Amino acid sequence: MWDRLWINAHLATLAPHAGHHDSETESGVLRDGAIAVEQGRIAWTGLCRELPGAPETLAQEVIDCRGAWMTPGLIDPHTHLVYAGDRSGEFSERLSGVSYQEIARRGGGILSTVRATRAASEDELFALSEKRARRLMANGVTTLEIKSGYGLTLEDELKQLRVARRLGSELRLRVHVSFLGAHALPPEFEGRRDAYVDHLCADLLPRIAAEGLADSVDGFCEGIAFQPHEIERLFIVARDCGFTLRLHADQLSDLGGAMLAARLGALSADHVEYAHEEGVRAMAAQGTVAVLLPGAFYFVREEKLPPVEAFRKHGVRMALATDCNPGTSPLLSPTAVMNMACTLFRLTPREALEGHTRHAAAALGLSETCGMLAPGMAADMALWDITAPHELAYWIGGVVPVGRVFAGVPDQAL
Amino acid sequence: MWDRLWINAHLATLAPHAGHHDSETESGVLRDGAIAVEQGRIAWTGLCRELPGAPETLAQEVIDCRGAWMTPGLIDPHTHLVYAGDRSGEFSERLSGVSYQEIARRGGGILSTVRATRAASEDELFALSEKRARRLMANGVTTLEIKSGYGLTLEDELKQLRVARRLGSELRLRVHVSFLGAHALPPEFEGRRDAYVDHLCADLLPRIAAEGLADSVDGFCEGIAFQPHEIERLFIVARDCGFTLRLHADQLSDLGGAMLAARLGALSADHVEYAHEEGVRAMAAQGTVAVLLPGAFYFVREEKLPPVEAFRKHGVRMALATDCNPGTSPLLSPTAVMNMACTLFRLTPREALEGHTRHAAAALGLSETCGMLAPGMAADMALWDITAPHELAYWIGGVVPVGRVFAGVPDQAL
Ligand SMILES: [Zn+2]
Ligand SMILES: [Zn+2]
Repeated sequence: MWDRLWINAHLATLAPHAGHHDSETESGVLRDGAIAVEQGRIAWTGLCRELPGAPETLAQEVIDCRGAWMTPGLIDPHTHLVYAGDRSGEFSERLSGVSYQEIARRGGGILSTVRATRAASEDELFALSEKRARRLMANGVTTLEIKSGYGLTLEDELKQLRVARRLGSELRLRVHVSFLGAHALPPEFEGRRDAYVDHLCADLLPRIAAEGLADSVDGFCEGIAFQPHEIERLFIVARDCGFTLRLHADQLSDLGGAMLAARLGALSADHVEYAHEEGVRAMAAQGTVAVLLPGAFYFVREEKLPPVEAFRKHGVRMALATDCNPGTSPLLSPTAVMNMACTLFRLTPREALEGHTRHAAAALGLSETCGMLAPGMAADMALWDITAPHELAYWIGGVVPVGRVFAGVPDQAL
Repeated sequence: MWDRLWINAHLATLAPHAGHHDSETESGVLRDGAIAVEQGRIAWTGLCRELPGAPETLAQEVIDCRGAWMTPGLIDPHTHLVYAGDRSGEFSERLSGVSYQEIARRGGGILSTVRATRAASEDELFALSEKRARRLMANGVTTLEIKSGYGLTLEDELKQLRVARRLGSELRLRVHVSFLGAHALPPEFEGRRDAYVDHLCADLLPRIAAEGLADSVDGFCEGIAFQPHEIERLFIVARDCGFTLRLHADQLSDLGGAMLAARLGALSADHVEYAHEEGVRAMAAQGTVAVLLPGAFYFVREEKLPPVEAFRKHGVRMALATDCNPGTSPLLSPTAVMNMACTLFRLTPREALEGHTRHAAAALGLSETCGMLAPGMAADMALWDITAPHELAYWIGGVVPVGRVFAGVPDQAL
């Protein structure tokens, strides 16, 4: 007997071989479907009329969805969720005409977040981050990537990573943790770039690996951050330590970051507005996922669009993420991201939904775990009062689910 | 004794003469404030330490806000909330490359909303609209404007107006109803524009006035809709019937709509991207409010920015609204609007908050009723877990209040 069975749901399974694919806008859809879970995993999906018996004889608990839509729980594969401090005042100052230089002089910008994050105790940092994580959960998220990168000292990076791990153990969320020591050069290493990369390689990576505090290693490859050769040196050590890789690549300029990510076998290259076609081809060959971040594009008023046509042509999977961070993307709604991906980047609503489910799972190396409604996958689901899956990307500012299921257990009754 | 007293709240009163105005970002702020209500109106505002006694001796009920921020309830002064049908499929088709012409040929576009709205019963229309109104309420709205304009026959316009009135009587919301018969030329009047305007003037306006079904009359002044001379003919009759006026003006081209609105004494001119400085000067002289609609600007990817500097220079008040409608602005979050107003139109967060409170009230002729926290005003409030009022405009996709008060009564305990 199954633990739990949802009936009278329309399923957007996102599974390539399930259901109907007659329309551009539907992704493995099963209308009037049912889904069963056992021990936290999906045990059965299909049409209600194909159930092998009366629902109440099949499961301990039967939940009638009365025509709601069910998707995989949303996956947010790129966030900087763990931080302290508040940059909304800086946002306000900029709009009142204060220059970036003046804001930096007053101690604003990314280093203000570093200062506040260093000053916060681990419990304070947890409490601040938990609020944001709960907002993502209310917006349908069941799996979440969280990066460090606001500590930039051994102790403060470990603190951020521990908070990220603790969010994964205390909340009903799957958390993938990335170490982003190569986010910005800390002020203590001004003028000693090589020494900082040495420090990351020699001291932080082995310690983080030994304590199991991260799943992957990330870097910010950009003129204002780290050069490709510095990233490469770090990533080779990271790979030897057993980490998977991901890279902030080609956001503000073309440094060949997409190409670099592919060459080193990274799971994802993120931002990638400036990626050139050669880099896109390399990503396709390697299976590197493009993680698009329309929130940051919108917030900092970028103009260069990511090469969506090239990704389509070469078969690079496009994932979407909030990039939640206090400086360039204060954003906690994946469906708002889906709307921006369609409106600003011209993705289709179907691509947008794949971007926050199946392809987001791929970006985290979790394709075998989540991102689809199919037997064997984690029973992580979101329930929506919508007319069709494309409505998820239609509402500006996003749409809020009517229910969420994590590991087979609903947050609230539907 | 007061009915209810909130203590330990930071008040953003929006009242020009209250509190502290030292910062560009603060609007009549009272930190560590208190607010009392009696019979649905605000009876007292001030600092906690200035209360004329111990809180529990002053009011029947005392609510401790524990440092939350309180603003006036948000006001959404321009919506097309009452409609049937779903245009998210059209959104999806457009992104898959289907042309506007092809969508129109298949029966899409505004006329599909007209068809669906005509086909819906009054109860169906109410149920659909109520869901959207409740979402606005959850996002902090206490006062709402709703337009007709998807019926375009006598009976169907009356039906829309009755649904709007019913939302105001059944929900905990103040609803201002606008008659927008001059939204689009109905297919039945193809080639007989004058006859349709005659029909509006002779049949609909007197009937709507007699039944008290609307507060103001609106029109869509644009090449694709109605010409200035047609609007003027309608508005003169409307004024004689006792309606206030508002106008969709200069959204896609400069037809002198801002000027026309001012000349006829309209409360507001809405959209106004193409308004020229002469029109802005006329609006300032008349006191006509500019209602900016960044959601539609974003969704249809307009490029012409409204003349914000000219509005500032001449002292035209800028209000903000969702413009909630299925074709060009599917949007139910005023704080998401505030973020777009800042990010896209370069308003300051302070201007954005004034735009959804004080100036939005002015756009509806309700300056004496709501939009500020001040004695005598309706006790409509929203409570927020934020660090300062400018945080309301900071989050992409908006921020959700932790409480809402309508006419002195909280929706939920804080
Ligand atoms: Zn990032
Ligand atoms: Zn409108």
